[in-house]
Amino acid sequence: MADDPRRMLRVALEQARTGLAEGGVPIGAALFGPGGELLGAGRNRRVQDGDPATHAETAAFRAAGRRPAGYADTTMVTTLAPCWYCSGLIRQFRIGRVVIGEATTFPGAHRWLAEAGVPLVLLDDGECAELMRAFVRDNPELWNEDIGL
Amino acid sequence: MADDPRRMLRVALEQARTGLAEGGVPIGAALFGPGGELLGAGRNRRVQDGDPATHAETAAFRAAGRRPAGYADTTMVTTLAPCWYCSGLIRQFRIGRVVIGEATTFPGAHRWLAEAGVPLVLLDDGECAELMRAFVRDNPELWNEDIGL
Repeated sequence: MADDPRRMLRVALEQARTGLAEGGVPIGAALFGPGGELLGAGRNRRVQDGDPATHAETAAFRAAGRRPAGYADTTMVTTLAPCWYCSGLIRQFRIGRVVIGEATTFPGAHRWLAEAGVPLVLLDDGECAELMRAFVRDNPELWNEDIGL
Repeated sequence: MADDPRRMLRVALEQARTGLAEGGVPIGAALFGPGGELLGAGRNRRVQDGDPATHAETAAFRAAGRRPAGYADTTMVTTLAPCWYCSGLIRQFRIGRVVIGEATTFPGAHRWLAEAGVPLVLLDDGECAELMRAFVRDNPELWNEDIGL
């Protein structure tokens, strides 16, 4: 199916793996349109660009460019539960649906999004979780920096 | 005083005016350190860069670069109340204080930040308000696009 969450997650996971290979924080995201078409994809840019403001969801949202018609018919997929910042992005721009790879390594603010009525699909994906667990174990300072701890 | 909110607001307001002159959404922001030193300043980049992900606060946060020690001792100043996205940035990165030029044109999520315990200084500045009122009146579609309406 065009809007199959696991197909979408693979695009985000590839971004996360590319980020890891670059020495970056391995979180990826992608924004899809109503027909399941890819609008934009991206990954955390903290290390690569020295940019603390670009989390994966932000990168994907930016890559999709301007969309004056809005985001109600779009799906944001991310390998890890969105933090307050990225959840705020999703809520402010009324993104229609969020697909989350995993929320065990970091729960973020996904429950807040759910309470605000944003439809979530939580996949509890093993590959996403293992990627983040290993990263956090090996890079605790970088991880804490990325989430403001 | 080094941390005088009105002095800080002037830096953000200059960014907003530059954005207006560029044909952009006239919202500016700046991040200041504990001694009142400017860490980074920026403005909304939607029109200038075709970038929907860079609101003024995001631009200022990016311009300040990485700060592994955190943001508890910093002040974010913005000409307009921060939206959910920018409020999420402030909350996630535990920015110590927020100075808001005005919250009448757009209340954003500043009350949510206050309820979360973030110290706010609301200046109710007439110049900020007049700048935004005129912009919203003359560019309603662009404004709605910028806040996801």
